[in-house]
Amino acid sequence: MRSVAVIGIGKTAFGAFADRDLRSLAVEAVENALRDANVEPKQVEAFYLGNFAGPSFVGQNHLAPYVGMAAGFEGIPCTRFEDACASSGSAFFHAWQSVAAGIYDLVVAAGVEKMTSQSTPRVAEILAGAGDMAGEGRAGATFPALFAMIARRHMHQFGTTRAQLAAVAVKNHANGAKNPLAHMRKVITIEQALAGKPIAEPLTVYDCSLISDGAAAVVIVPLEQAARYHARFAKVLAVTQTSDHVALDHKADITCFPAVKAAGEKAYKLAGVGPKEIDLAELHDCFTIAEIIASEDLGFAAKGQGGPLAASGATAIGGEIPINTSGGLKAKGHPVGATGVGQICDIVMQLRGDAGERQVAKHKIGLAQNLGGSGATCVVTILEAA
Amino acid sequence: MRSVAVIGIGKTAFGAFADRDLRSLAVEAVENALRDANVEPKQVEAFYLGNFAGPSFVGQNHLAPYVGMAAGFEGIPCTRFEDACASSGSAFFHAWQSVAAGIYDLVVAAGVEKMTSQSTPRVAEILAGAGDMAGEGRAGATFPALFAMIARRHMHQFGTTRAQLAAVAVKNHANGAKNPLAHMRKVITIEQALAGKPIAEPLTVYDCSLISDGAAAVVIVPLEQAARYHARFAKVLAVTQTSDHVALDHKADITCFPAVKAAGEKAYKLAGVGPKEIDLAELHDCFTIAEIIASEDLGFAAKGQGGPLAASGATAIGGEIPINTSGGLKAKGHPVGATGVGQICDIVMQLRGDAGERQVAKHKIGLAQNLGGSGATCVVTILEAA
Repeated sequence: MRSVAVIGIGKTAFGAFADRDLRSLAVEAVENALRDANVEPKQVEAFYLGNFAGPSFVGQNHLAPYVGMAAGFEGIPCTRFEDACASSGSAFFHAWQSVAAGIYDLVVAAGVEKMTSQSTPRVAEILAGAGDMAGEGRAGATFPALFAMIARRHMHQFGTTRAQLAAVAVKNHANGAKNPLAHMRKVITIEQALAGKPIAEPLTVYDCSLISDGAAAVVIVPLEQAARYHARFAKVLAVTQTSDHVALDHKADITCFPAVKAAGEKAYKLAGVGPKEIDLAELHDCFTIAEIIASEDLGFAAKGQGGPLAASGATAIGGEIPINTSGGLKAKGHPVGATGVGQICDIVMQLRGDAGERQVAKHKIGLAQNLGGSGATCVVTILEAA
Repeated sequence: MRSVAVIGIGKTAFGAFADRDLRSLAVEAVENALRDANVEPKQVEAFYLGNFAGPSFVGQNHLAPYVGMAAGFEGIPCTRFEDACASSGSAFFHAWQSVAAGIYDLVVAAGVEKMTSQSTPRVAEILAGAGDMAGEGRAGATFPALFAMIARRHMHQFGTTRAQLAAVAVKNHANGAKNPLAHMRKVITIEQALAGKPIAEPLTVYDCSLISDGAAAVVIVPLEQAARYHARFAKVLAVTQTSDHVALDHKADITCFPAVKAAGEKAYKLAGVGPKEIDLAELHDCFTIAEIIASEDLGFAAKGQGGPLAASGATAIGGEIPINTSGGLKAKGHPVGATGVGQICDIVMQLRGDAGERQVAKHKIGLAQNLGGSGATCVVTILEAA
């Protein structure tokens, strides 16, 4: 396997865009990434598109050639990857593998979701399809309910508090407020977060990520060819994808995600670094509790100490391990299929020193963690500044 | 790229199974393939699952770990591939690439679709999602309508007749009647085919493939390791995936599919064989006209001569180039996401000499062609008996 570089990143704003369709969002992100990489569409050898529920939200399936042809690709393999909220993480994993293994020299990985549509009133049901519909779904257990159970158990077992959950929300809102592409650019206080409208006890509206439209894309080449295209690429140190049970009741312990632990351990080994070497991370905060647990599963905090870590300020910009400097799914937004590649764009932006107001001081190595469902899929990516 | 072998095949029956859910079908196919290959689930390094519209038909998304965990896989990358009716063709393409490039030594590619469900009344709309919903879909152009236009143009331009279309149906029904796993085991006459209930002029019900439930799976390893597992493997000579416009009105000529031509040409080149060396083929007969056009695009007939080829008997079992000895999508059934890998199983069965009543005399090299939508994706696979 040869080393691989990300030579271009492209994102749309994340938000609720009544006047935009899925394809125009995806094409905008791809065009931005190609422009950033100084690459023409005709140079692209394969297209990896993550999308979770285009057919359910906008009635359109067969999305990869649908987007790819509009982006100017010609006859190349165009494939849609679906792994729930880790759909574009999986697209990136497969794109990376193809270049690392020498199959292609230049590919695009992207993700897109158009969640605001005529079907938005059914959003909880559509998202529930990422869980076990025959069990959880039939019982009415939507994702906020599942993660509420996870949070309650974590609180019971480790003394995690609602204030610690709220600290995650406050931090991510503060970061999102500085991100021009974020869905919600609104600073909130801990009091506001705690007094948020209840969604599923103990989670309030401030503990839940957003229903967003958006897209993101990256261009990938062999590291040895990266300098040809762009001066400020990022090196991919590791990408790992793992799996676990879809139904929460099949898990022995719901206060951790074995797929996240395994993906993290494999990625650290492949990259030759440990959590201490990571300068910043984008973690999959579909709910505040998910960021807390991910920070434990990936070794940024000891088991049960993710809450105190968040409340300590260590995960803020300027802290020891800044987490979700983009605003995270909480404030940046969570267009499901776009989230994985979007995280990678956000890390690369930091590694390049391009994050403006949100720029972290130490930005040599970054990690992105993309979770599918309640932990049945995880993709972890570790990137290094070139 | 190293040579690759299919060492195990597994299929469920195709049909309308009110008592079976999507997962049980997929797991049955995977277990059959593993048993055929003498492989345990724990040996599998990655799982590639093709599915077109599980979320729309049965409300379940995130299907790859959902199926994979039930099949006994442990923590491995489990990914769903969606490319309309070529979904499992694409899964197979990526699985093959991963072994050929040396990423893995043992993977499973599978496909599944559960089309008979509470959502079956919406089947035309769900399938239309493989086309351009904003254009074709909004205009009410379902797939029978699109392929009817293709058929009419082919008839106008090349003199193709309804009797030639019917000849495809008669042949595929005759083959399907001999296939114990086929959905419709019913011999029909040319008169019956011509007098079929009109669906979209000139297509009758006998020109259209079936709405089926079913699954198929294969086990793939490096060729040099194949003999370890199973005595009667098949060598993969080539797999190619190509793309084209999703909307029919973006195509310059609707009497051929550029994605099929390109996939075929690349596959022939990679395999070092031409159409004359192919002993039998499974072609994507979602409609009878599609088999006729595929036989032209892949060089079994000259342009415009696919109709006469079908009517001549050359594509029957015992003819020069037997096509769809399984019964094809027409009679075997078309559980959309299962079709691509199902075709590969059918070819391997013939290459091994295991096709019973349907066995063709010459069975050294076989070709499978899997089409997505009205030609926006194509996967062509060429296999050789070991």
